[in-house]
Amino acid sequence: MGCLGEHALCNGKLIPASKVVLSATDRAVQSGFGVYESLRVIQGRPVYLQDHMLRLERSACGIEMKHPFRFDDLTKWIDVLLESDSIEKATLRVLLMGGDSPSLIVTAHPLLSYPDDWYRKGVFATTYAGERFLPRYKTCAQLLSYLALRDAQAKNAFEAILVDRYGYALEGTRSNFFAFRNHVLYTADESLVLEGVTRDKILKACECLGFSVVLEPISVSDIVSHRFDEVFISSTSMGAMGVCRLDDTLITSDFARTNAIHDLIRKWEVQALH
Amino acid sequence: MGCLGEHALCNGKLIPASKVVLSATDRAVQSGFGVYESLRVIQGRPVYLQDHMLRLERSACGIEMKHPFRFDDLTKWIDVLLESDSIEKATLRVLLMGGDSPSLIVTAHPLLSYPDDWYRKGVFATTYAGERFLPRYKTCAQLLSYLALRDAQAKNAFEAILVDRYGYALEGTRSNFFAFRNHVLYTADESLVLEGVTRDKILKACECLGFSVVLEPISVSDIVSHRFDEVFISSTSMGAMGVCRLDDTLITSDFARTNAIHDLIRKWEVQALH
Repeated sequence: MGCLGEHALCNGKLIPASKVVLSATDRAVQSGFGVYESLRVIQGRPVYLQDHMLRLERSACGIEMKHPFRFDDLTKWIDVLLESDSIEKATLRVLLMGGDSPSLIVTAHPLLSYPDDWYRKGVFATTYAGERFLPRYKTCAQLLSYLALRDAQAKNAFEAILVDRYGYALEGTRSNFFAFRNHVLYTADESLVLEGVTRDKILKACECLGFSVVLEPISVSDIVSHRFDEVFISSTSMGAMGVCRLDDTLITSDFARTNAIHDLIRKWEVQALH
Repeated sequence: MGCLGEHALCNGKLIPASKVVLSATDRAVQSGFGVYESLRVIQGRPVYLQDHMLRLERSACGIEMKHPFRFDDLTKWIDVLLESDSIEKATLRVLLMGGDSPSLIVTAHPLLSYPDDWYRKGVFATTYAGERFLPRYKTCAQLLSYLALRDAQAKNAFEAILVDRYGYALEGTRSNFFAFRNHVLYTADESLVLEGVTRDKILKACECLGFSVVLEPISVSDIVSHRFDEVFISSTSMGAMGVCRLDDTLITSDFARTNAIHDLIRKWEVQALH
């Protein structure tokens, strides 16, 4: 029996994680011709595997990537990895990359989690001008996000929010972006941003919690002029996490609405396993 | 002694080319955090090595990539590779990729060359809507170019010309883009497109050949309405090559101006070796 991170899956085969490599001369690899997913494993099982596999398929279709993999098989392969390395909790990364014969690689990493304090008080985010290419898909064309996040981290921020040519704060480098005005939640519609698996659960949670949803992009100027009274970001690993400051704008909130959503979607995750 | 393609350089070490790999789990690799160059080797020597190394450095600076390499060393390393595999002519690809400890990889491939007929008659190009991220730099964030070129090739075209939000045909997926009106050459200025090594020589050739240069982007609508009488693309491997058709628009020309430029810049390449 191995331990977390010891093995990886490459095209369905269990191999030592250190042996998982990509060809440096494959033009497709060098061009970022790939798609990926990040999943949480809790209680020894992947959360919303079906949702992630569907999105991986959608992303692969979005860049017209041909591949021989059936996602039913992937489900079985992931079981093999979880069992071989006795994985109870982890973040799984699924990467489908390459040109004529793409590789499907699954690696397991320590489960990402964040201090309770960050959920209570919110985190600091910065803005970064730029638009993701093919925003609906989770592709490896990530240089913009990589640079934006590095810029944020240099300023001690947790996340960078990408701002488009019209001044809309569409999404983070690894998160979706939301803002409340009273009991109405605003977020950009699916044509403009990644259709986050967690974003989808958040919209469902709003229904349960009595919040209305307006699918409209959020302008930075409306945040700066305090037209929203609670702002948050979401992802598979963070759930829903409040943002207390965007660049120099403080957004004062107790994050009650965000945390109610967070608690509900985390409860659903556990329920979905059984 | 090896032969072309047998060896590669990895961080200055000569290794079998098949062993040149990138970590599949390096987030920087997955994000396209890298820069590259393509060079021609003729008569056993790299053409305009200094120009390419300067641009590699500029590209690395452009994405704020830290790396420990000195390009003086690279020159020596390339000599080792050329000698070990007795390389007389080749296309060299130099790749600098990765996050905390990037890899510098040099691989040698058969020299790209094109039929004389293509230069005489011009090639077919298509348009593709999209703007390169950080166009001044030669980065691995190439998904747009990869998809655009694939689209072109599916239509039996040789190149795709990227068209920006304003309708300007700025550059190809692996080439710069030019258009003549009488003896005046138009091309986008360096803030909008890659500062091609060959583009630079073309601008100098225009000076020698008595053509004026106007650094203005070329609109697709001006091509469709035949406001230009000769159109061409350029790159290290193709030199200057006429375009006889853009999508459905035929551009009738004998390519005399393009071929005069091509011949001159190829002559300069040989001279630069000595």
